[in-house]
Amino acid sequence: MTVTPAESAAMARARELGASVLGTTSPNPAVGAVVLDAAGAVVGEGATSPPGGPHAEVHALAQAGERARGGTAVVTLEPCAHTGRTGPCADALLAAGVARVVVAVPEPTQLAVGGAQRLRAGGVDVELGIERQAAEEGALAAWLTGVRESRPFVVWKAGATLDGRVAAADGTSRWITGPVARAAVHALRATCDAVVVGSGTVLADDPRLTVRDADGRDLPRQPLRVVHDRRGRVPSGARVLDGAAPTLVSRAAGPAELLAELFDRDVRRVLLEGGPTLAAAFLRAGLVDEAVVHLAPKLLGAGPSLVGDLGITTIGAALDLRVRDVMVLGGDVQVRLRPTRHTGVGRQADGRD
Amino acid sequence: MTVTPAESAAMARARELGASVLGTTSPNPAVGAVVLDAAGAVVGEGATSPPGGPHAEVHALAQAGERARGGTAVVTLEPCAHTGRTGPCADALLAAGVARVVVAVPEPTQLAVGGAQRLRAGGVDVELGIERQAAEEGALAAWLTGVRESRPFVVWKAGATLDGRVAAADGTSRWITGPVARAAVHALRATCDAVVVGSGTVLADDPRLTVRDADGRDLPRQPLRVVHDRRGRVPSGARVLDGAAPTLVSRAAGPAELLAELFDRDVRRVLLEGGPTLAAAFLRAGLVDEAVVHLAPKLLGAGPSLVGDLGITTIGAALDLRVRDVMVLGGDVQVRLRPTRHTGVGRQADGRD
Repeated sequence: MTVTPAESAAMARARELGASVLGTTSPNPAVGAVVLDAAGAVVGEGATSPPGGPHAEVHALAQAGERARGGTAVVTLEPCAHTGRTGPCADALLAAGVARVVVAVPEPTQLAVGGAQRLRAGGVDVELGIERQAAEEGALAAWLTGVRESRPFVVWKAGATLDGRVAAADGTSRWITGPVARAAVHALRATCDAVVVGSGTVLADDPRLTVRDADGRDLPRQPLRVVHDRRGRVPSGARVLDGAAPTLVSRAAGPAELLAELFDRDVRRVLLEGGPTLAAAFLRAGLVDEAVVHLAPKLLGAGPSLVGDLGITTIGAALDLRVRDVMVLGGDVQVRLRPTRHTGVGRQADGRD
Repeated sequence: MTVTPAESAAMARARELGASVLGTTSPNPAVGAVVLDAAGAVVGEGATSPPGGPHAEVHALAQAGERARGGTAVVTLEPCAHTGRTGPCADALLAAGVARVVVAVPEPTQLAVGGAQRLRAGGVDVELGIERQAAEEGALAAWLTGVRESRPFVVWKAGATLDGRVAAADGTSRWITGPVARAAVHALRATCDAVVVGSGTVLADDPRLTVRDADGRDLPRQPLRVVHDRRGRVPSGARVLDGAAPTLVSRAAGPAELLAELFDRDVRRVLLEGGPTLAAAFLRAGLVDEAVVHLAPKLLGAGPSLVGDLGITTIGAALDLRVRDVMVLGGDVQVRLRPTRHTGVGRQADGRD
């Protein structure tokens, strides 16, 4: 497996392109593609369109036109070999006359597999598994979780004071974090297919859960708003029922049932914004894949904590995570983490369009 | 106020030199000095010796020798004009024949003031107040707090999980943070004159509170170990009473009384390592000047929180701090903060040796 520096740079750009459409492609993967001409110059870029639209490779090839001939396509996921709502990408690459295809992640589904084989049969040089981990942990993570575990990928977002309080003793919590961190939450919502809270959050904060711009206006595309409301406590006047975006009030028995319900609705990436009780339920079930924690430089000394009872009584049993990165957001601190213990084993799903 | 790039670089180095002796100079300030020759090249460096030893300028001049003549001395604090255990630094600079002295912080005590005046009278060009804030917030902060408030500077150190727990429900807390963060705590202790805990910490964890190297050996110089034990609960067999370093068991009524007791013992920089109760008492009294918080990427969901009751019930009354810097320490996250509200008004103290 060897790639040129130009191909490696193109792969980094392809990962960025995939990430740029995260939240708009489900149930399809958010793929990025870059086409280099025979001399190694970038002549086309593309990312997956919403379902029914062209895949990343097709966009990049269209932009490249004749310059793709004899060139290289660099793609985060193996080009598909099947005809869904769109034609096979492998055929499009063959028709464009590319000499080489560099792929990060081999196609994991039975339905779409065979792209590399078809390309090789057509005389194209194919490299598989290039910078695979970076692609798997990036924009493809949500879709891969769907393929392997038949459930959506869950990002848990929480905001707290330095001493881990999500609200003061009297229940007030606006605003713990500053405007920059709050804007980052809206940007995070935009990368997800659904935003989930519990009925407790609706009753306490009455949030709208929409994605808004800097002026507070709802963006055109909105994730599904989901309230886990097992006991039917959400009042009809709740703002989450304002009709500004689709809303699901679910009576699912628990996190796994709720995620199954969402998976069936083509949700592949969920933002869990609920309070300590819902967060604890997901964490106990091993159903958190990533955590984004905003810590405000404040101390309260009292009030509910970031996460409710996990059934952990001794330090050796603490739930361990791994810090991915840390940054200052305005006056607050953002820590992104991944759990180090994963639950659930890979189960084959029914592929992608 | 103008300085050359060489003088600005020398001032940055002088701050580093001062910081390098923090914890060894009290009750004197941790000063750094750099001597440049007439062409602007560094020819001498120095930092304050332990009490009774030479001041920073004297070290730097000795290293420079004849090359100091016609050169510039760059110092974080105005050279003293009085004779204590050592002679006046202003006279040493005059004798060495320096043409110019660049100073960050003007001498704030009546006892030692007059250095700039004496130098100017001797024909030396003196610049006062150069990069003053950086020097005041650096190694001089502890001594300046002593001069202005007649109390030691207090660094609060805490280690907790991401959800703000300092121990699990069963009381276990070893180890919440990893080896790199723990080594950083020993390095932090070495910069302090005293390490303070409450009797609760002694009863729960029985810590030694010494400064140890990577192999676990006590370093030669140890800060004073202090246990705030109002009710006389510390047992005679406690490890803090092992004789490895001086220990004070204090029955002071509260944080202010404890700090006054320490100030009288020439302590100028205190590391507060106590549990949530002691931390809350210091925070409520407005007696924390800096916070160093180590957050482990773990979740417990139960157990005592970082800080006890602060008497705060609503979010608007939260105790606000400002993030100074954030870094990853091994697998943990370190956040350094300063409170944004300061209590206590400057009161003149009796100067320095």
